[in-house]
Amino acid sequence: MIVQPLKGFRDYGPEEMLARDRMIDKVRSVFESFGYAPIHTPALEYAQLLMGKYGEEGEKLLYRFLDNGGRDVALRYDLTVPLARFIATHPEIRFPFRRYHVAPVWRAERPQKGRFREFYQCDVDLLGVNSAAADAECILVDVSVMEALGLQGYRVCVNHRGFLDGLLRASGVTPAQQVSVLRILDKVDKIDREAMASQLMGEGLNEASVARLAGLREIAGTTAERLEAGRRLVGDDVAGTQALARLEEVLGIVERAHPGAGVEFNPSVARGLDYYTGVVFETFLPAEYGVGSVMSGGRYDGLIGMFSGRDVPAVGISLGLDRLVSALEQRGDKAVGGVTQVLVCTPSGMESMAAVVAHGLRRALGGRGVGVELFPEPVKLKKQLDYGNRQGVRFLVIPGPSEMERGAVMLKDMVNGSQEEVPLAELSQRVQERIKA
Amino acid sequence: MIVQPLKGFRDYGPEEMLARDRMIDKVRSVFESFGYAPIHTPALEYAQLLMGKYGEEGEKLLYRFLDNGGRDVALRYDLTVPLARFIATHPEIRFPFRRYHVAPVWRAERPQKGRFREFYQCDVDLLGVNSAAADAECILVDVSVMEALGLQGYRVCVNHRGFLDGLLRASGVTPAQQVSVLRILDKVDKIDREAMASQLMGEGLNEASVARLAGLREIAGTTAERLEAGRRLVGDDVAGTQALARLEEVLGIVERAHPGAGVEFNPSVARGLDYYTGVVFETFLPAEYGVGSVMSGGRYDGLIGMFSGRDVPAVGISLGLDRLVSALEQRGDKAVGGVTQVLVCTPSGMESMAAVVAHGLRRALGGRGVGVELFPEPVKLKKQLDYGNRQGVRFLVIPGPSEMERGAVMLKDMVNGSQEEVPLAELSQRVQERIKA
Repeated sequence: MIVQPLKGFRDYGPEEMLARDRMIDKVRSVFESFGYAPIHTPALEYAQLLMGKYGEEGEKLLYRFLDNGGRDVALRYDLTVPLARFIATHPEIRFPFRRYHVAPVWRAERPQKGRFREFYQCDVDLLGVNSAAADAECILVDVSVMEALGLQGYRVCVNHRGFLDGLLRASGVTPAQQVSVLRILDKVDKIDREAMASQLMGEGLNEASVARLAGLREIAGTTAERLEAGRRLVGDDVAGTQALARLEEVLGIVERAHPGAGVEFNPSVARGLDYYTGVVFETFLPAEYGVGSVMSGGRYDGLIGMFSGRDVPAVGISLGLDRLVSALEQRGDKAVGGVTQVLVCTPSGMESMAAVVAHGLRRALGGRGVGVELFPEPVKLKKQLDYGNRQGVRFLVIPGPSEMERGAVMLKDMVNGSQEEVPLAELSQRVQERIKA
Repeated sequence: MIVQPLKGFRDYGPEEMLARDRMIDKVRSVFESFGYAPIHTPALEYAQLLMGKYGEEGEKLLYRFLDNGGRDVALRYDLTVPLARFIATHPEIRFPFRRYHVAPVWRAERPQKGRFREFYQCDVDLLGVNSAAADAECILVDVSVMEALGLQGYRVCVNHRGFLDGLLRASGVTPAQQVSVLRILDKVDKIDREAMASQLMGEGLNEASVARLAGLREIAGTTAERLEAGRRLVGDDVAGTQALARLEEVLGIVERAHPGAGVEFNPSVARGLDYYTGVVFETFLPAEYGVGSVMSGGRYDGLIGMFSGRDVPAVGISLGLDRLVSALEQRGDKAVGGVTQVLVCTPSGMESMAAVVAHGLRRALGGRGVGVELFPEPVKLKKQLDYGNRQGVRFLVIPGPSEMERGAVMLKDMVNGSQEEVPLAELSQRVQERIKA
């Protein structure tokens, strides 16, 4: 018998989970500060609802089966199609509707380093409104999350799919050439002007087209300069010009609402163009974090109404939880050890007393985020101390028989190695003083 | 196409989820204050690991299927077998090991009122130690959860499976009679002495046996009196007497550590006797809450080592999340409306300004648990106010053009209906003052 998680699946141990949960708690606070609320949808849905939504490749990755009642069911593949189903199931919902959802999804991908068949998605979406203020709100959520997590030096790169569409039209790119041209433009930050030109020529573009597309490289400087360069590139393409006007409005709100946030118009963001219909953005950390985009989002007006027959414009963000956790760890933000800060040891013969001391301290500290753990059996003290070290506790409390006769315990501070006898009545106060110091 | 959750499954909307999440947050704080940490295991496991663990009936309820790679897999049925698998997969774990796990499980039960095929379990377990202090700790966790949730008048009814076994032996009940006799004893609080006697006679017990078993009805009064009555009932049965000694030790620790907690020796708790090996307990709320046992637990030393070949004694609690939420709602503890407390309206022409005002207020209030929501498009003000009412917001902020010229906004307090012009610079302070008042 294989006593392991399934191939491509993984456990999270206490340290990993604490780090994740603490991060998610902070993220939830940000979401809720904007009025977003959580929802839950089931892990399993009728397979029919998921079919035809993820392309041929995606569909192959569904965990799809017949249940005991012969129903054709599948584990959810993302949180977006279930959200569309939720909206159709609940016609009582009024817009604007703000929801977030943190939950696992399942994809039978070929397992590879860092890719798992079960992983958490964290989506936050504002439904029912198509306005610059709604677009700006999502970018402000993004910025507020980065600040709440204390991740410095981030950049939110914002683009508009209508701008790229307009530029392609203005450059005479045919619909047949679009996909491969976008793939080249996506690399604009990574390849030089010559390589870009020769690749575009290879797709059959003429010199004038290549020259116009190369103009993307000139989008730089202040937001006003970038937008102006963008306008020159789309020329008299109406939809492209309108896209830039929307972008200007969105970036203007963000700048006034949250001055100095690292938000910029960056046309190299071309991701998910089939899916998005307006503003798109990606969030990058400085290279030393060694992670890619940690959050991405945009406007996708066509998707949420798919089951309800309602027109439901939508804008939202997906957080890359694993990448954010990894960035925090990179910064040394690991939840060191366990949750425990104090370990109360149990000398032989002191079993009940140690339990009572531990609980008394816990109640006295109650709600101050300090965990008090009891070593619940009188094994050799050395073994108990080793355990405390492994857990990374800050304090040891030892209720020895002679100290207890004086109504006191031994308090050992692992930070400075100090050890002192403390009357029980003063124990919680002493621990708090030392934590503050 | 059926645009509904699967039969037997359900969505949770924002209000339900907020109530659940806030409760779970409080529960997690209690767990962590004792040194418990979260773990995650996958939703899917090898089916082989789950087979033979839940009896014939349980096995039929598994969501079991062949995955795309032909593996025989199943959705988890509970959190206990995955915990045993986790311990076997991670031999690096040292004991005592304290973990909690809040996650959905799946059972293809016949759907009925209040029973779903996907539901959350919340388990907290202390592994690797068999001591009275460990048993007592679980009861203290139970009591601390009830207090953290502010649920008054609860009773934790504690028994020991060894006591009931001893009583059955002392009463001459044969192994063949055990199951049906226990079923009758389980009703001791619900049927009168005569009904109990006649049912026991019906199982072939003689008068002496019936009289001894009826002695369960005399277990009452103080803990000392109850234990004394228990000792008389088991007579000279050694294991039964030892069980009562353990119970006395456990209850003694609980009473000294948490005086006045509603914890009692109550022999009518006979649940899950196949599974538990020592102390067992159930937590009841006063009848007006209209829910059954909201938390239950006990010692189960045989289970966790099943895959690892290690001897892993264990004691733990399962929280009935749905029942606890329902109890809190019964008490009127519903998370009223959404998360929002302030709605910033968008008069026509004030789109950007409203977004900037909302975010400024949000940042000024940051981290104080007040949500600030923007109505992100300039529809009729009446419609925006209706939305605010439905969301149950406390404050409306209206950045009208004439007020904005004076650097001010209109602040409306929905509690007393008051309305005043407030300079933007004082807005967050005014909101906080009014919340405090």
